[in-house]
Amino acid sequence: MEKSKWIWYPGAFELYHSMLLHNRRTSSRRYNENNPSNRKGQARSVYYYPMWRIDGPKRNAILMKKATIDKEETVEFFANTPYATIVVDNVSYNPNTKITLAPGTHTVYLQGFKAESFPAFYCKGDTFKTDRSWKVAASDEKAGQSAGESELYTDINDIVEVFKFSYKRIFPVSKEEVNGGILYDFGKEVFGKVIIENAKKDADLTIYLGESREEALDTDYSEIILNAKTENGKYTSSSVALRYLFIKDEKDFDLSLNFEYLPLENRGAFKCDNELVNKLWETCAYTMLLNSREAFFDGIKRDRWVWSGDAYQTNIVNYYLYNDKDIVKRTIRMLRGTDPIKKHINTICDYTFLFIASILDYYQYTGDKDFIEDIYPEMLAIWEFVEGRLDDDGMYKRYPDDWVFIDWSTFDQNGPMCAENMLLCRAYEAMSKCAEIAGDKEMCARAKKQSEYIKEQVNLRYWSDEKGAFIDDYKSGRNNVTRHANIFAILFDYTSNERKESIIKNVIYNDEVTQITTPYFKFYELDAMCKIGDYEYMTKMLNSYWGAMLELGATTIWEEFDPTKKGIEHYEMYGGKYEKSLCHAWGASPIYLLGKYCLGVEPTGAGYSTYTVKPNLMCFNEIEGKVPLNNGEIYVKANKKEIEVLSPIDGGLLIIGENKYEIKKNEPLKISI
Amino acid sequence: MEKSKWIWYPGAFELYHSMLLHNRRTSSRRYNENNPSNRKGQARSVYYYPMWRIDGPKRNAILMKKATIDKEETVEFFANTPYATIVVDNVSYNPNTKITLAPGTHTVYLQGFKAESFPAFYCKGDTFKTDRSWKVAASDEKAGQSAGESELYTDINDIVEVFKFSYKRIFPVSKEEVNGGILYDFGKEVFGKVIIENAKKDADLTIYLGESREEALDTDYSEIILNAKTENGKYTSSSVALRYLFIKDEKDFDLSLNFEYLPLENRGAFKCDNELVNKLWETCAYTMLLNSREAFFDGIKRDRWVWSGDAYQTNIVNYYLYNDKDIVKRTIRMLRGTDPIKKHINTICDYTFLFIASILDYYQYTGDKDFIEDIYPEMLAIWEFVEGRLDDDGMYKRYPDDWVFIDWSTFDQNGPMCAENMLLCRAYEAMSKCAEIAGDKEMCARAKKQSEYIKEQVNLRYWSDEKGAFIDDYKSGRNNVTRHANIFAILFDYTSNERKESIIKNVIYNDEVTQITTPYFKFYELDAMCKIGDYEYMTKMLNSYWGAMLELGATTIWEEFDPTKKGIEHYEMYGGKYEKSLCHAWGASPIYLLGKYCLGVEPTGAGYSTYTVKPNLMCFNEIEGKVPLNNGEIYVKANKKEIEVLSPIDGGLLIIGENKYEIKKNEPLKISI
Repeated sequence: MEKSKWIWYPGAFELYHSMLLHNRRTSSRRYNENNPSNRKGQARSVYYYPMWRIDGPKRNAILMKKATIDKEETVEFFANTPYATIVVDNVSYNPNTKITLAPGTHTVYLQGFKAESFPAFYCKGDTFKTDRSWKVAASDEKAGQSAGESELYTDINDIVEVFKFSYKRIFPVSKEEVNGGILYDFGKEVFGKVIIENAKKDADLTIYLGESREEALDTDYSEIILNAKTENGKYTSSSVALRYLFIKDEKDFDLSLNFEYLPLENRGAFKCDNELVNKLWETCAYTMLLNSREAFFDGIKRDRWVWSGDAYQTNIVNYYLYNDKDIVKRTIRMLRGTDPIKKHINTICDYTFLFIASILDYYQYTGDKDFIEDIYPEMLAIWEFVEGRLDDDGMYKRYPDDWVFIDWSTFDQNGPMCAENMLLCRAYEAMSKCAEIAGDKEMCARAKKQSEYIKEQVNLRYWSDEKGAFIDDYKSGRNNVTRHANIFAILFDYTSNERKESIIKNVIYNDEVTQITTPYFKFYELDAMCKIGDYEYMTKMLNSYWGAMLELGATTIWEEFDPTKKGIEHYEMYGGKYEKSLCHAWGASPIYLLGKYCLGVEPTGAGYSTYTVKPNLMCFNEIEGKVPLNNGEIYVKANKKEIEVLSPIDGGLLIIGENKYEIKKNEPLKISI
Repeated sequence: MEKSKWIWYPGAFELYHSMLLHNRRTSSRRYNENNPSNRKGQARSVYYYPMWRIDGPKRNAILMKKATIDKEETVEFFANTPYATIVVDNVSYNPNTKITLAPGTHTVYLQGFKAESFPAFYCKGDTFKTDRSWKVAASDEKAGQSAGESELYTDINDIVEVFKFSYKRIFPVSKEEVNGGILYDFGKEVFGKVIIENAKKDADLTIYLGESREEALDTDYSEIILNAKTENGKYTSSSVALRYLFIKDEKDFDLSLNFEYLPLENRGAFKCDNELVNKLWETCAYTMLLNSREAFFDGIKRDRWVWSGDAYQTNIVNYYLYNDKDIVKRTIRMLRGTDPIKKHINTICDYTFLFIASILDYYQYTGDKDFIEDIYPEMLAIWEFVEGRLDDDGMYKRYPDDWVFIDWSTFDQNGPMCAENMLLCRAYEAMSKCAEIAGDKEMCARAKKQSEYIKEQVNLRYWSDEKGAFIDDYKSGRNNVTRHANIFAILFDYTSNERKESIIKNVIYNDEVTQITTPYFKFYELDAMCKIGDYEYMTKMLNSYWGAMLELGATTIWEEFDPTKKGIEHYEMYGGKYEKSLCHAWGASPIYLLGKYCLGVEPTGAGYSTYTVKPNLMCFNEIEGKVPLNNGEIYVKANKKEIEVLSPIDGGLLIIGENKYEIKKNEPLKISI
C-alpha cells in the first residue's frame, strides 16, 4: 500500500523553498571605486536582492476528500501547526487526534494556518491517508486542484520547512602553505558546509573560497568569503561552493566539509572507447549532481537561482540521467510563482516561452498526465499574460521591462527578434498539446493555428535571400545574422529543407558568423545538427569545446568557454575577475545528446508508451549505456559488428538503417550488422 | 523634526496582522448530534478556518529614496532581518551600519527578506530617515507607491510583528459561590488575558467564559472555554472577551485580567440632561474601545474579524470619537488584501461597495490626500473586478459566490436587489470623487456618469406606485417591500422629495413593514431620518431601542436586539444559545448621530477645510460636547437660550435657522436665541 505523504496547498512547498533559496545569495565582489568594471558595486558577503519578484506560499490552506468506505477506518490527523483542524462530516477536531469512521460516505476537510511558513497535513488511514487524491476545497480560488505532495516527505517526522538533503563528511585532498596562509584543495568542485574543528576557542577567521586556485589566493577579488567565528573551537558555515579554500589567520585546526547533496541515482549511463568523452560524461553528471537541489539551479557558486532557460535544458538532461520527476515538478512550480503575473519568468521573455515548452517535454518523457492537469490552469494564466503583450498580428512585441536574452551574445535586438518569435511559436505548439492533454479543445485548436501562422510569418519576414539565412530583425535594415534563430529553424523544423541547407552552409559552417561561446546555446546547436544527422559537428565539439575545458582542468562544466582565452581570463565574466560560474548546469547537455543520438533512445509516445532506439556510433568504435524510464532502464550496446538492446518495457522499435526490430520487454535483442 | 518610523512594503504590516487576527478564532459551540440547530457542528476550542481568503504580506521588499543634501549626513541603517541591505549609490552595506553621505545627490535602496513575517527597515538620518517619503523601487510591480508606516512604530526597539497594545491589570468586582464552583464578575465586558496565580503547581482548570451570567454558568453551551494548565501555579490565557468567568475545578487561587487595549483618547464628547442618553454615549464609546484594535473589529467575543460593512460604520463613529487616522488606514488595508481579486470583500457584494464609499468618507473627514493617492491603485483593481461582474446594462448582477447581505433580515433576493444597486451607485459616486483626488480624470467622469444612470434606472425599475415604496426586486413579481432600500433612497438622496414623503409614510412609520433589528441598519435608518430633519424618530429609538438594551443590563452594545424577546432568548443567534455578540461595534452609531446632528458638526470641505455647526437640541434641554479634528476639537454647548462654539480652526459657519455666523479660530462664539 502507498504510504501517506505530507500534503499542502498546491505549490506551497515549492514556493516556500524557492523563497528561501532565492534569498540566499550574497554579493560577491568587493566594492572598489577605482574598478570601473564594478558596475553593480556590491560589497562582499552582503545580502543580495533577487532580480525578479519572489513569491511565497499562502499561509492558509483548505483541502478536502470525499470518499465511501466499506469497512471501519481509523484516521490519525497531524499538522505542522497548532492552527489546524480536521473536519470530519462537519465535526472539527484538533491535530494529534484519532477518529474512527464508520462504513459509508465521509467528507473530510483539512484546514490550517502557519504564519511562519505554510501549513502541511498528514493523515494516517486507509482511504483517508494524505496524498494528491485530496483536493483544494470548493470555496477556494484553486478549487479542485490536487493537494501538493513530494516523494521526499512521506514520514510523520519529516519537517516540510527543512529541505531533505543528504550529507557526507569529506576532507581536502591536499593542503599547501602559500602566500602566508594555507590553501586547501578538495580535488574537485564541491558544495556543502565548511567545518572548522579543534581551533582556538574564539578564533576569528576569514576564509577565501575559490572554484579555481587563483580565485582562492586572490583575497581581494575572490567571490565568496566566509567570516568564521569559532565557538568553543568549532565553526560550521552555511552551504557554499568551492574547490579551493585559503586561510591566513590561523593554521592550527582541522578542516572538512559536510558535502550536501540530493541522493539522485545516475540511472543513465554512457561509456565508449574515447576516454575524454567518458570523462566528459562523468563530469557532466557531477555538474548535474551539484546543481540538482531544491530545484535545478543554474550554477552552484554565485546566485544559485532557478532560471527557466537553464532549467529547460537541465530537465532534458535529467531524462537521460536520473529521470527524477519530483525535481522537474518542483522546478516548474518554483518558476511559475503565483498570480498576478506582471513580468516574464525571470523577467526574460524567451524564458517564459521555454517554460511552457518544458512542460510538454516533461509529459513526453514521463507520461505524467496528472501533473499536466494540475499545472494547466497555471499555464493558462501565463498565456493570458503573454497574449496580452503580443502585437496586432499576434507576434512577439518587445516591452521595456522584457529582458530579451536568447544567449550571452550580441544581437540586433531593438525590434522583435526572429529567435524570440520562433520561441513564441514553440510555446504555442506546447500550449496546444498541453491543452489537448488537459481537455481544453478550444485552446488546443487556437494555439495550433496561431503557431502555424507565426511559423509562416517568420519565414516571410525574417528570411534574407542575400544572406541565405534568417536575420535578427527585419525592421532595422541591418540584416544582421547570428547563429541562434538559424539553429532554432533547424531544430524546430520551422523552415524548408532548402533553407536548412543554406543555413548550414552560410551560418553553421561559416566561421565569420560569431561562434557560440556558451554551453547553453551549444545545446541547441548540437541538438539541431544531430537532428539533421550531422554527427561530425557534435563529435568535433565534444572534443574541441567540452574536451578543451577538461584539458584546462575543469572538474565541472563552465558557464561560458571561449577557447581563445588564456589563464585567469577564463574566470572573468560580468565584469568580475572570478564571477564566472565554473559549475554551470547548462553545460551538461552531452548526457542528453549522447543518450538521444548516440545510444539513440527517444520516446515517441508519452512516457515511452512507444519509443525508438537508433544507435549511432558517431566517431566511436563502441558504445554502451542506459537510459532511465519511469521504472527501469533501456540498455544499449553497439560496436561496428553488433547492436544489443534490453528494455524492461514493450513498445520499442530498434531502428538500424531501413530495418526495424520490435523490442520485447526483458528480452535481449542482438542484431549483427 | 519628525521621528524616523519603521517602514515596509505598502500594506505588509497590515496584511501580517490581518493574517494573525483572522486566524485566531476558535470554534465556540460544542458539537451535539442531537441539536439540529448546530449547523456548523464546530467543536469547542478548535481552530476555526476564516470564511474568506486571507492574504499575507510579501516576504520581500525593495524601497528607495533619491534626494539631494546640502550638508554631510550620517545615516544609520537597521532592519528586522539579517537578510537586508542598504544600497547607497550602488554600494551595499549590512544592517547596523553607519554611513556618511557627502553633500550632493544620493540614491538609496533598502532591500530585504523575512520568511517568517515581512521585512521592515529603520534609518536614522536627517533627509534619509525612514518614513513614507521612501517609495517602492521602479523594478517592482507597485513601483512608486509610498512605503508603509505606522504612528505606533517610531522607535528603533519596536517589533513590527508584535502589535503594540497597552495593558492594565484589572480584578473581578465580585466573586460568588454557585453551582459547585465560583463565578467571577468583572462588572462589565472586558478583553484581555486571564491570569491565574498562586494556584496548585500543576492545576488543570476549565474556565467557562460568558458575556452574560447565564452563558458562563451554562457550561455545556458557553461559547468560549479555556483549558488552563498552570505552570508553577500560574497560567496566562490568550486574549479573550468576557464579563463573567466560571470555574468548578479549584477554588484556591488568585484571578485577574490583563486588560488589553489600544490607548485611544475619547477626543469626542457628548453630555445632555438625559442621563440614559449620557450613559448610552459612554457605553457606545466603551464598545468602540473594545473593538478598536489592529483594525476595527465587528465584535470582541466570537470571530474578531474585520468586516467591511461593520467597518464602514465604525470608521464614521471614529471621526466623532477618536478621529484616529491610523486605525482607519489599517482597517482599509486589511480589507483590501492583495491581488488577484477573486471574490467580494468578505465575500459580500454590498461590503465591497461600502469599502469604496468608506475611503471617500476618510478623505472627507481627514483631508488626507496622501492616503487616497496610495490606495487609489488598489481601488482601481477592485473596481475592475466589480465591473467585470455587472450585467449588460451595467447594473449589479448576482453571482453564485456573492453573499448578498444588506442586513440580517428577510429579502426577496433571488434577483438583483434594489438596495444592492443603490450601494453600487454609491460606490460609483465614491470612485468618481476618489479618481478626481488621484488625478484620474477619465475614471472620474465615467464613474459619475454611470452613477447617474444607475440612480435613474433604480427609480424606473424598483419603484412601486402601488406600494408607494421601492421594492426589493422588480423581476420576481412579489413586490416585496423592506425598509432597507427605502432608507438608502432617503439617505443617499436617490429619489424625489415626493417619493421620500411616500416612503416615510408607507415604510418608515408603517409598523407592518418588518422592523430593523440590528443596530447596524438602525445606523442608516436614523442617519436618513436625521438627514431629513425628523429628529423625533431618533429620539424615540435612542430610548426604546438602545435605551432598552441598557435597561436589560448591557454594558456594551449588542449585535442584534429585538425588544420583544425575553431572558436568554436575547443571547441566541445563528442557532447558538449564546452565539450573539454582546459587544458589537456596529451598535456605537449614537456617537456619530449625536455628534453630527445634535452637536451638529460636519465637514463640508475635506478634512474640515470648511465646516458647519448646526446644533439641534432634539428632545434635550441642554447639550454639550466636542468633535475631534486632525488637531484639536470643536466645542459646542447649547441650551434653549444660548449656543456656544469654540474651534481651533477657521473655516466654520455656525448655522442657527436662517442665520449664519463665521467661526473664528480660538475665538469663543456665543449666540443668544
